[in-house]
Amino acid sequence: MLAETIAAIRSADPQAVADARAHQDRLTKPRGSLGVLEEIAVRLAGAAGVSPPPMPGPAALAIFAADHGVYARGVSPWPQEVTVQMVANFLAGGAVANAFAAQAGVSVTVVDVGVAADLPGAPGLVDRKVAYGTADMTQGPAMTADQVLQALEVGVSVARELVAKGARCLITGDMGIANTTASAALVSVFTGKDPAEVTGRGTGIDDETYGRKIGVVREALRVNALSGAFEPGEALRALAAVGGFEHAAITGFILGGAAARVPVVLDGVIAGAAALVAAALAPASADHCVAGHRSAEPGHATALAHLGLRPLVDLELRLGEGTGGLLAYPTLCAAVRVMHEVATFDSAGVTEKSV
Amino acid sequence: MLAETIAAIRSADPQAVADARAHQDRLTKPRGSLGVLEEIAVRLAGAAGVSPPPMPGPAALAIFAADHGVYARGVSPWPQEVTVQMVANFLAGGAVANAFAAQAGVSVTVVDVGVAADLPGAPGLVDRKVAYGTADMTQGPAMTADQVLQALEVGVSVARELVAKGARCLITGDMGIANTTASAALVSVFTGKDPAEVTGRGTGIDDETYGRKIGVVREALRVNALSGAFEPGEALRALAAVGGFEHAAITGFILGGAAARVPVVLDGVIAGAAALVAAALAPASADHCVAGHRSAEPGHATALAHLGLRPLVDLELRLGEGTGGLLAYPTLCAAVRVMHEVATFDSAGVTEKSV
Repeated sequence: MLAETIAAIRSADPQAVADARAHQDRLTKPRGSLGVLEEIAVRLAGAAGVSPPPMPGPAALAIFAADHGVYARGVSPWPQEVTVQMVANFLAGGAVANAFAAQAGVSVTVVDVGVAADLPGAPGLVDRKVAYGTADMTQGPAMTADQVLQALEVGVSVARELVAKGARCLITGDMGIANTTASAALVSVFTGKDPAEVTGRGTGIDDETYGRKIGVVREALRVNALSGAFEPGEALRALAAVGGFEHAAITGFILGGAAARVPVVLDGVIAGAAALVAAALAPASADHCVAGHRSAEPGHATALAHLGLRPLVDLELRLGEGTGGLLAYPTLCAAVRVMHEVATFDSAGVTEKSV
Repeated sequence: MLAETIAAIRSADPQAVADARAHQDRLTKPRGSLGVLEEIAVRLAGAAGVSPPPMPGPAALAIFAADHGVYARGVSPWPQEVTVQMVANFLAGGAVANAFAAQAGVSVTVVDVGVAADLPGAPGLVDRKVAYGTADMTQGPAMTADQVLQALEVGVSVARELVAKGARCLITGDMGIANTTASAALVSVFTGKDPAEVTGRGTGIDDETYGRKIGVVREALRVNALSGAFEPGEALRALAAVGGFEHAAITGFILGGAAARVPVVLDGVIAGAAALVAAALAPASADHCVAGHRSAEPGHATALAHLGLRPLVDLELRLGEGTGGLLAYPTLCAAVRVMHEVATFDSAGVTEKSV
C-alpha cells in the first residue's frame, strides 16, 4: 500500500501554476494585493493540476492519538492518562478542536493508532491501534519495522476512506502526551539541527523539565545511531527509531492525501515532523501540503522552513489537536473562492492602472 | 448624535475581563495554549461586559466609498473612476470582498459617502453622499467642519442601522482611489510620526510616485498647520483637514459600534487611521475594536501599535475593501466559540497537569 501510494504522488503541474498566476492577474484587484493568499491559490492549482483549483471542501480533520514510551523519562508534566481522557473529550465534542471544527464546518474523526489503554467503542472513534504506546526511544527504537509500516498504512487508509466519503481537504490532528519530544527528535534528524534548537516547551514545562527534555532527545538520537549525517534511505528507520505512532500515521495521511491530489493542511509541530518524513519518502508530497499555522514550538518553524512552507496563521497557539489547521481552513477556502468568483477587469468593466 | 454616541461608550469591564480569564483557565487545554485567541476572547468579554462574551454574529461589512481631491496631485496610478467601477463591482458581487464575505457568511452594505459621481440606485447601495469627493488637502482643509460632522454621522447611523437589523459584529470596509494618501496624513498627525515613516505604496506605485506621495502628505500637513505637536482637542479639525469622507464615516462607524457594545473588526490602514481618530474622540472606543489584519502599509502597523492592537491576520494583503477584516472574522468567532462550547477539566474528567 505504501509503495503504491508513493508512486501515485505527482509534483505540482507547471501549466496549472502558470494558468493560476495569469488568472490572478486578470482579477479586479491590484496585482499581488492578496499577498500570501495568491500564492496559496496558485499552489493548490499546481497540486490539483488545474486552474482554478477545486474548492477545498468539504474538509475532514483526523486526530491521530497515541502514547509514547519516552513519557517514562519525565518529559511532560501531564499524566499519561490525559491522552485517553482527551480522546473521550473529542468524542463528546468538548475539546477546542471540536469547537473550531464546528465553527469551520469540518468533520472530526478520531483514530486510535497507539493509545496505551483500551478505549470503549464510540461513534467517531476509529480503532486502528498498532500497540499500547511506543517503546522508550532512549532504550532503542520506539517502533519495530513492522509497526512503523502498520502505522503508516493506518494513515494512508484513513486518508483514502475520508476522500472516498467526499472529503476534498484533509486536516491533520494529533493527541499524545509527550509527542512534542518525539517531534523534536524527528525534526532534528530530518533537518540536521541540534536538539537544543528544535526542542520546545510543548504545552508548558518548567526549566528543569525543559533541560531534561533536550537531554532525552539527544540520548534517543545517540542510542539509535541518528546523531550523525542522515541518509535519505534511512527515513523509515529514523521514523521507527524516534517517532510516535501518530507521527507515522500522519506521514501516511499526508502521502494518502497527496496521492489523491487532495490538499493536506498541516497543524503544528507533530504534523511538521511528519511532513518532513513524508517529503523524505516522496519529495512531491510537500507540493500537496499547506502549512496551517506556526506554533510556539521552535522545531515547527524549522520544519516549515525546511519544507519551504509559509504558515497562514501565526497566533502563538501551542495546543495541537489540529487547532492550527482548523483556524487556517477558512483562509484557504477564501483564497480559492477568489479564483472562482471574482470578476475580471474585462468582465466587470473596471479600468486597469496606468503602467 | 455624535456627542450622545461618544457619551454612551463604556471602557472594558474589569470584572468581565477577570471572569473571562478565569474561565479560560478552567477549559480542557493547557493554560495559554490558545495564544492570541485567549486574549481576543477576554477582550471581547471586557467590551461586552459579560463572560463569556456573546458570539460575534451575524456580522455585517460596510464598505464606505468616497473620492479624494488630493487625487489631482498624482498620488495614484489608478484612474479615479475606478472608485465608481468598484462600487458597481461590489453591488454585482464580483469583488474580492464579496467572495470573502460569502465565504465567511457576512452581509455586505455599500455606502456612498462621497463618491465624485452620481451612482445609479441599486439594492445594497446606501446613498449618504456628503459631497462629490473631498477638496485637495494640499490647498486647504479636505472637508468643511460641517461636512466632517455629516460624514461622521453617516458612519454612526449605518452602525446603528446594521445593529438594529441584528448585526452583532461590524466589519469596516473602504473604497476610494487615493485614500492611502489621506490615511498616511492622519496616521502622521495622530501618532506624531514623520510622513516618510507612515506613507506606503498603497495598491502599487513606482518610486517616483512614492516620493511625490510623501511630499504631498508633508505639504498637506504644513498647509493645514498640522506639522507640529497635536492637541487632542484638535481631532475633528485634523480629520476635516487631511481625512476623507470614508475615514470620517468609519470613525463614526467605530463609535457607533462601540456605543452599542458590538465589536468592530478593523480592516487595513484606512480603518486604522479612523480608529486613531475615534480613540482621540473617545479613548474607550479602542476597547471595542479588533485588529483584523496588518496590511503591507507601514502606517498601518504604526496605527495598530499606537492603539495597542494586535492583528489576527498577517498575510501581506494590501487590497482594502474590508478583505483583511473578513479574513479575520472566522478566527474571532472561533475564539469566542471556545468560551461557550469547550468543556472544563472538571466537567470532562480530564486531569490537570502537576505544577
